[in-house]
Amino acid sequence: MAVLDVRPILYVIGYLLIVLAGAMLVPMSADLAAGSPDWQVFAVSGALTLFFAVLLVLTNRTHGISLNLRQTFVLTSLAWIIVCLFSSLPFMLSSLRLGFADAFFEAMSGLTTTGSTVITGLGDLPPGILLWRALLQWLGGIGIVGMGIVILPFLRVGGMQLFRSESSDKSDKVVPRASDLALAFCWIYLALTCICTAALMVSGMDAFDSICHAMAALSTGGFSTEDASVGYWREPAIHWTLIVFMILGSLPFVRYVSLVRGDARPLLRDTQVRAFLGLLAVSSLGLALYLGIVQHMPAEEALRQATFNVVSVVTTTGFASADYTLWGSPAVALFFVLLFTGGCTGSTAGGVKIMRFEILWLTLWAQMTRLISPNRVIPLSYNGKPVDSDIILSVMSFISIYIGTMFVFTQLLAATGLDLVTSVTGVAQALGNIGPGLGTIIGPAGNFKPLEDEAKWILSLAMLMGRLELFTLLVMLSPSFWRT
Amino acid sequence: MAVLDVRPILYVIGYLLIVLAGAMLVPMSADLAAGSPDWQVFAVSGALTLFFAVLLVLTNRTHGISLNLRQTFVLTSLAWIIVCLFSSLPFMLSSLRLGFADAFFEAMSGLTTTGSTVITGLGDLPPGILLWRALLQWLGGIGIVGMGIVILPFLRVGGMQLFRSESSDKSDKVVPRASDLALAFCWIYLALTCICTAALMVSGMDAFDSICHAMAALSTGGFSTEDASVGYWREPAIHWTLIVFMILGSLPFVRYVSLVRGDARPLLRDTQVRAFLGLLAVSSLGLALYLGIVQHMPAEEALRQATFNVVSVVTTTGFASADYTLWGSPAVALFFVLLFTGGCTGSTAGGVKIMRFEILWLTLWAQMTRLISPNRVIPLSYNGKPVDSDIILSVMSFISIYIGTMFVFTQLLAATGLDLVTSVTGVAQALGNIGPGLGTIIGPAGNFKPLEDEAKWILSLAMLMGRLELFTLLVMLSPSFWRT
Repeated sequence: MAVLDVRPILYVIGYLLIVLAGAMLVPMSADLAAGSPDWQVFAVSGALTLFFAVLLVLTNRTHGISLNLRQTFVLTSLAWIIVCLFSSLPFMLSSLRLGFADAFFEAMSGLTTTGSTVITGLGDLPPGILLWRALLQWLGGIGIVGMGIVILPFLRVGGMQLFRSESSDKSDKVVPRASDLALAFCWIYLALTCICTAALMVSGMDAFDSICHAMAALSTGGFSTEDASVGYWREPAIHWTLIVFMILGSLPFVRYVSLVRGDARPLLRDTQVRAFLGLLAVSSLGLALYLGIVQHMPAEEALRQATFNVVSVVTTTGFASADYTLWGSPAVALFFVLLFTGGCTGSTAGGVKIMRFEILWLTLWAQMTRLISPNRVIPLSYNGKPVDSDIILSVMSFISIYIGTMFVFTQLLAATGLDLVTSVTGVAQALGNIGPGLGTIIGPAGNFKPLEDEAKWILSLAMLMGRLELFTLLVMLSPSFWRT
Repeated sequence: MAVLDVRPILYVIGYLLIVLAGAMLVPMSADLAAGSPDWQVFAVSGALTLFFAVLLVLTNRTHGISLNLRQTFVLTSLAWIIVCLFSSLPFMLSSLRLGFADAFFEAMSGLTTTGSTVITGLGDLPPGILLWRALLQWLGGIGIVGMGIVILPFLRVGGMQLFRSESSDKSDKVVPRASDLALAFCWIYLALTCICTAALMVSGMDAFDSICHAMAALSTGGFSTEDASVGYWREPAIHWTLIVFMILGSLPFVRYVSLVRGDARPLLRDTQVRAFLGLLAVSSLGLALYLGIVQHMPAEEALRQATFNVVSVVTTTGFASADYTLWGSPAVALFFVLLFTGGCTGSTAGGVKIMRFEILWLTLWAQMTRLISPNRVIPLSYNGKPVDSDIILSVMSFISIYIGTMFVFTQLLAATGLDLVTSVTGVAQALGNIGPGLGTIIGPAGNFKPLEDEAKWILSLAMLMGRLELFTLLVMLSPSFWRT
């Protein structure tokens, strides 16, 4: 198999573009209803996308799609890039008139559910473009859940083989049962989004902002409809509602399927869920105590602000309810460390992810024991499943590549003239698909607009790499990928 | 073996303290010759050290020292701490009147060959204390070489088992042949120090400063006799001489033994040496080009300043010939990344070390190949030796623990009120035993004096952990260490 058959790949991408073209009808309708001339932008973008989509589907039609390993790698990477290109059309054509680098950055930030933005004056924009940003995140979010449950375990990327049998029955092909599961996820995702919208409206947000924020929260995306992000709204109920739904977006979606069937135990017994909630609780409470005692913030505010922003960063959402870079160095250092955590596997969240830290922790303990008793055999298990050396090596490789990529990209960003803190945290937030970094430019009160185009391209690549769990993209740099 | 027999441990430490007490005669003589009353400080400290040393030796005398695994772990960690305590006596008692935290920090920084200092006005100090600082590094340096060749491969810490058969004949005990090797190292180390001293004197440095800088260069320590570090001397020949000897201090000492026997091939063929020199060349040339073209520095100066400071950081020496934090963000980011590199294993250098990056690189390539061809067996070899999964796991665990420790300690340092850059680079330089960090306080033009005592304790611990390759110390936190 020397030549890669790209037809099934382009065929699938064609179908994805049809969905994207269909999605453009939503902001078009919103702009039509609001009387904004931008509706034509979405009509044109949608038509263009649909044209290419149909072209791809018709020219690459095959009998029964069956993808091998190499094709799945190429498809996964290429799909994100092509969908992102078409998604950026409305940003270029609309009254915003974003340049290509800006538009691509914004689309990538949306689809990867990162939430970094180059757009200012959000509050004055027509509804269509705001809805488009929210939709990109929402679609990206469900795409990520599907990819995390169906594709990545098949590709065995970064320890994801741990989740293999749960969804794919240890088969060598992506099995049909996966599509049933995917459908269940879509319904759960939609239902949660509707509940979140309603809860936000009850809490005092208007309907449009509620829809946009619900989509951005469930997808752990973080695009807001105001420059001040969630900090624009002062109602505590809005903050607490978003806290709950950011967390719900970061839990493993497979567990919701059991929950819907009436069994809450798989969710509550998942060590990943417990470790994740534990991390959130400890970080939030610690920060709240610090804010209350050292920074003299009133108790309720301290707890709410601490929890909101910790949850926002750990779940990789990236909403900001305050500029936490003004909370003193201990708080800044905490948020720096949290940039490297992430949510649960099989959710919409990004980052290194809790599962990997758990495997790492198990490995390090075993390693220490082996140092003392060199001949002892230490069997490791995770959530009741045995963890073999293949999984351990995958996880450790992932973490190493993550840190390595961070150093390389930091150097590249600094070459565009950015200071050290902006470079390091810019890469960290992009790789983790979080949204804000630290420092004055890209911090929670900042915006990515002032960055050089080169920096935006670097960050776009980092967001994509993070979302594809690094190896999915990097494997294609290996000569043997094209040789086998 | 429920109770740990500490007698042989204390017995060995007693002998180390006798050496330390003997070493105190050197600065005592220097102060006597210079007519400084500080000679009494060294006399008192020496007497006190000798008293405890003899006490330990006499009360713990055993027939033939034979240490098991647990005892070796405890000895290795405890020896550094106790030697450091006695080494800090002169700093407390001398006219400097350093507090305990400062004195311990300075002694630890010396013995671990880190080179961070809390002392200002170095140029005006009596010779004894300057010589003491240089001696601590020099003794620490040879101790580290010995530990890296004899003890750590035996303890199998962080992939050091790779170097096992070279020195210890795969025995389960630290073998006698090791002592022959250790003696050879001492002679080579001494010879190199003498040559460096002579070269510095020829280059225009006075005899005293030459001796101190030669000791600090060969041990990759970095203590200087002036506040401006090597930047105080403008002679290019001095800079180039130190560049050469910092590099010589960071190459694997076993290779020198072959070299002395007339065979240069083992040194030149060592992949570790090649990768290390390659890293130095690429980083120095890249930085020199940037300094010349972007910062308009004259060619010779650009090459010399770039090479000196890159070599100083990568070899973990920590001399500074200029304040490179003023060279713009690309340079700052480069030095940030270089803080995480390090020299060769079996040298006086610290840091993550080149060998580990090579093993990591091999592992990641193998990992990528396995993603494409899941059933392929990929044998890995390093310097002609097979690399098994035990070594790979040790190396990956080391790197993970290194990064993890960095995050935890960053948080601790920030809690003392330090900004993010100072906290992160402060920990990075301490763990890597480098010397200067980045930022205005602890940068190459700075000093550790303004830090809170808590910060100095945290950094002292980080230096020790880095020097002991983390696991040697961490393993004792495991309950099973005390149970077996």
